[in-house]
Amino acid sequence: MTKRPDTPLLDTVDTPTDLRKLKPEQLRQLSDELRTEMIDAVGSTGGHLGSGLGVVELTVAIHYVFNTPEDRLIWDVGHQAYPHKIITGRRDRIRTLRQRGGLSGFTKRSESEYDPFGAAHSSTSISAGLGFAVANKLNDKPGKAIAVIGDGAMSAGMAYEAMNNAEQAGNRLIVILNDNDMSIAPPVGGLSAYLARMVSSSEYLGLRSLASKVANKIGRRVHSSLHKAEEYTRGMVTGGTLFEELGFYYVGPIDGHNLDHLIPVLENVRDSEQGPILVHVVTTKGKGYAPAEDSADKYHGVPKFDVVTGEKAKSKAGPPAYQNVFGETLAKLAETDKRICAITAAMPSGTGVDRFAKAHPDRAFDVGIAEQHGVTFAAGLAAQGMRPFAAIYSTFLQRAYDQVVHDVAIQNLPVRFAIDRAGLVGADGATHAGSFDVTYLASLPNFVVMAAADEAELVHMTYTAAEHDDGPIAFRYPRGNGIGVDMPETPQKLEIGKGRVVRGDAEKGGKVAILSLGARLEEAKKAADQLEAKGLTTTVADMRFAKPIDSELIRKLAASHDVLVTVEEASIGGLGAHVLTMASDEGLTDPDGSYGGLKIRTMRLPDVFLDHDDPVKQYDEAKLNAPHIVDTVLSALRHNSAGVAEARA
Amino acid sequence: MTKRPDTPLLDTVDTPTDLRKLKPEQLRQLSDELRTEMIDAVGSTGGHLGSGLGVVELTVAIHYVFNTPEDRLIWDVGHQAYPHKIITGRRDRIRTLRQRGGLSGFTKRSESEYDPFGAAHSSTSISAGLGFAVANKLNDKPGKAIAVIGDGAMSAGMAYEAMNNAEQAGNRLIVILNDNDMSIAPPVGGLSAYLARMVSSSEYLGLRSLASKVANKIGRRVHSSLHKAEEYTRGMVTGGTLFEELGFYYVGPIDGHNLDHLIPVLENVRDSEQGPILVHVVTTKGKGYAPAEDSADKYHGVPKFDVVTGEKAKSKAGPPAYQNVFGETLAKLAETDKRICAITAAMPSGTGVDRFAKAHPDRAFDVGIAEQHGVTFAAGLAAQGMRPFAAIYSTFLQRAYDQVVHDVAIQNLPVRFAIDRAGLVGADGATHAGSFDVTYLASLPNFVVMAAADEAELVHMTYTAAEHDDGPIAFRYPRGNGIGVDMPETPQKLEIGKGRVVRGDAEKGGKVAILSLGARLEEAKKAADQLEAKGLTTTVADMRFAKPIDSELIRKLAASHDVLVTVEEASIGGLGAHVLTMASDEGLTDPDGSYGGLKIRTMRLPDVFLDHDDPVKQYDEAKLNAPHIVDTVLSALRHNSAGVAEARA
Repeated sequence: MTKRPDTPLLDTVDTPTDLRKLKPEQLRQLSDELRTEMIDAVGSTGGHLGSGLGVVELTVAIHYVFNTPEDRLIWDVGHQAYPHKIITGRRDRIRTLRQRGGLSGFTKRSESEYDPFGAAHSSTSISAGLGFAVANKLNDKPGKAIAVIGDGAMSAGMAYEAMNNAEQAGNRLIVILNDNDMSIAPPVGGLSAYLARMVSSSEYLGLRSLASKVANKIGRRVHSSLHKAEEYTRGMVTGGTLFEELGFYYVGPIDGHNLDHLIPVLENVRDSEQGPILVHVVTTKGKGYAPAEDSADKYHGVPKFDVVTGEKAKSKAGPPAYQNVFGETLAKLAETDKRICAITAAMPSGTGVDRFAKAHPDRAFDVGIAEQHGVTFAAGLAAQGMRPFAAIYSTFLQRAYDQVVHDVAIQNLPVRFAIDRAGLVGADGATHAGSFDVTYLASLPNFVVMAAADEAELVHMTYTAAEHDDGPIAFRYPRGNGIGVDMPETPQKLEIGKGRVVRGDAEKGGKVAILSLGARLEEAKKAADQLEAKGLTTTVADMRFAKPIDSELIRKLAASHDVLVTVEEASIGGLGAHVLTMASDEGLTDPDGSYGGLKIRTMRLPDVFLDHDDPVKQYDEAKLNAPHIVDTVLSALRHNSAGVAEARA
Repeated sequence: MTKRPDTPLLDTVDTPTDLRKLKPEQLRQLSDELRTEMIDAVGSTGGHLGSGLGVVELTVAIHYVFNTPEDRLIWDVGHQAYPHKIITGRRDRIRTLRQRGGLSGFTKRSESEYDPFGAAHSSTSISAGLGFAVANKLNDKPGKAIAVIGDGAMSAGMAYEAMNNAEQAGNRLIVILNDNDMSIAPPVGGLSAYLARMVSSSEYLGLRSLASKVANKIGRRVHSSLHKAEEYTRGMVTGGTLFEELGFYYVGPIDGHNLDHLIPVLENVRDSEQGPILVHVVTTKGKGYAPAEDSADKYHGVPKFDVVTGEKAKSKAGPPAYQNVFGETLAKLAETDKRICAITAAMPSGTGVDRFAKAHPDRAFDVGIAEQHGVTFAAGLAAQGMRPFAAIYSTFLQRAYDQVVHDVAIQNLPVRFAIDRAGLVGADGATHAGSFDVTYLASLPNFVVMAAADEAELVHMTYTAAEHDDGPIAFRYPRGNGIGVDMPETPQKLEIGKGRVVRGDAEKGGKVAILSLGARLEEAKKAADQLEAKGLTTTVADMRFAKPIDSELIRKLAASHDVLVTVEEASIGGLGAHVLTMASDEGLTDPDGSYGGLKIRTMRLPDVFLDHDDPVKQYDEAKLNAPHIVDTVLSALRHNSAGVAEARA
């Protein structure tokens, strides 16, 4: 373990109250120490680095100028909030980031009163801030809302909806646009081009030197000087801005690393009687740490790394990541099938679409943080004869649920959904877990819903989806690496709605049948080993499909086993519910039916939001590992005291 | 029946191919006849009138200028597409609008090749159009995409996301902004104010006379003249526009009822080598029909009416509409509870929030078509101590699903969801059905989900929700009027997770227990009458809660009945799935358990999207009326040939 950095000034700052006792000229040193501390901490934990480095001065300036926590500071997404956490009473736990029981990698209401609104998905901050501002207005209470939102997050429609509604907040709402021209991937779209034009304009280039004069000038006045400040800064860019057209007072662009500019501008914004105000701040992602500044992704999300060299801990060599299996499979299929397209919503590398894009740049579309548009765009492509794959994480597909229902399912359009990050996801915690997709998709008419048990299955499902032109089809798979199975030379087209028996024999039967959906299959097999060791013959089926379910296989298993147990990495309403519903429709558990005596148990994600943790431990907490499957079976059998199983034989 | 109007020219136009044979000077007459025909048809069917009247000339002009259906014309929402239907081969069925087996009230792919993308929810057209445009570009095929979108629909984030991505379409995408300053309710927000400023500017006021000269001038040239046209029209408003900042070429505003302006401008837009282009067209909702123009809502949606007088068919006096019961109850509660707020997304009268707003204007928020923002805004209000009610139709709440999960459920914030239009909705059809909310909400940790059996229950649930500060709570209720029960003098606070037995006795039991959720309760009672007449004692419970379910009551009913049947106006994954899951977790249907011999059946919406029809007939088709409940019970009992019920007695 390396020695912790020297941070004499930061050591005096536990909360913003301490910070506000400092003199303005001390803030530069404080920022430097804060940056050093953050680099050191993330070096030991891994996590989001580049974004936090970009907002060190902004964090210091906001807490210095505003009266947090009464003034509500809302960090959009929240992954840039590590410096904020350090100076809001959480420094002692900063080296527990994203670890079990430790600090969340995002803002979180339960962690601190300085986190008035948690986040992790993007573009929610202006809406939430408006809620705070309006509540205070209604109650005639003091307290402003400050939303800090990146340029990438501005591409989401939700941010626009909020801006369109912001006028009512008046001067109680301040939006700080943190423009680093680089969210996770290079930015896309008209808005981004627009911001780039503003920042690169000769007026702004001239501003960098001008701004200090302006800042000094406006710093001397207190009230009513904002108008002047505005005139100065506004005058520097041409004409009205997009934000002004939506009702904001626009201030900027200003250098987000220069405290001599930030502090007086924010003071004036704070004291303005006009509003809502949008402050356009330009920052550099990864600022102040050379390895981050020099890297392509600005150390957006990193494993542990060596602080001196910037060298990242290598992940063990192993099976390929699911996302890459998907991206490469799709790229290969697209060589001969010119109809295949891939769509990502600002997650090219996270979804593997980057690998597709490399081979087929014309047919890869990064729509920005715009899942709603992405899905309906895909529906339009499908309606015109293409074979679009919308590659979206389970949790982010929630953003496009209405488009999935209204534009895809109702019209029965063959959009393919490649759903990454299904199930529990580890360090990113509850906000990123892919818990609900099986439930919210399998309830839709026309939909086919699959889950891959391993990376070879993912290859088959990608191909099966490509070939499925009858309507929408989705396939989900976990975060992280595959399990190391042999990869197929040629992908196989799966029969829709048919599972496969991977252990035992459905006809011959046995005591227990485990019906697995998705990547719990390995745990199901382990559980089967343990059950067999106890003398309980166990059949294991990989159901592959949550919709349509394989009724024929279920009937067969019901007839030849005493207990059916479903296992899935999904919430209530998924495979288990569909099996129970089919069984109840057909009377499979009726005592007088031909399956009389059958018991069914369903294992699923629990009815709680699970915190960040190691995924294996999360599945322990969720009771979805092999020992829990064994327990569930034994408990069901124990119930069986009347000897029904014997009676059937 | 009144005589059909004389329409000699329209009689020669079955499809746009016929239309294109006319001379430009005949289009005025054609438009007048088309308007007359439409008024006459809607007079006899009811439906959306004002929006269609506003786009008669635009409809004629687009089909005249563009090569539909190869050029893809996409009407946003689609309720303004009646004139479009009349001239695209569907005139013979125009008087079947919204009737069983007749034309849909929206655009629909299965109806016509001239409807390349169906709609009904707003703001999808640009995304879909971009899909068409990009597919054609990739395949090097001709065909442009024309999206016609209202100013109200522009307030949705989805439209902004699409515009932000539009540049890649080049001249293959044309967006026509149909600005009538009036969607369903008066428009709100910064965008609306912006458009109003543009239209009311002296430049535009001057334009009305100028425009014809411009149109004539540009009409004479064919290629490359658009630039000039653009310069003319753009020069008339000040500086850059919001749309240009997002990458569009902006043309407008132009008078949408003047064919002499529309035709040449659209021709030039069609032939432009630049793009994407946004054409800002100003129209009058209800244009050309005095009763509509003179009414406050411009005859947005109307019952049958007398064409000469404009007098609308009166609906029978009867019990109050659910939405008004909600709005009035909430308004009353808010008299003494200053924390109560109400939020609607552009549906003030549809949700009853108008009644709340009348009493408490400061605490009523119409956010525009912006469900995402609306929900997170509500979450912000809740986090700051208010008691917000987000009043959103079931089908539209899908637009905010991620906000419901990420901002409300995960943070356990007490946002109240008043979910109107639950279940099947009649003439609006599948796109407006409220089918999935129970499933997609009851799968979420922290959520409480209720359904009102009648209008008195809605009063209690509104109050229960107001008092519930522990986390999110939702209550759903049907479209239309209550059933005429006595209204409570004071609302009752319901115990969370507790149902009520409305017929029979849970302890004493009987043969059959019907567990109803929501407004099927009346059918459940009728079914009970019929079952009793057959000698089968029947208990009926109104479960009230889909989450948490009343496990205690279910256990009790399981112990004292042979068959449990759940009934709900919701998809698979709702109450039925939750009851089955609980029963399976606890082994209630196990043959050797203490409930041995129990059968459970679940009745829910079928796995198809049901077309528009009378709601009663829709529920017949869904098999959720009393006779179907009886059949389900008898079928379950018939299965019971081994006499298990007798054995238990």
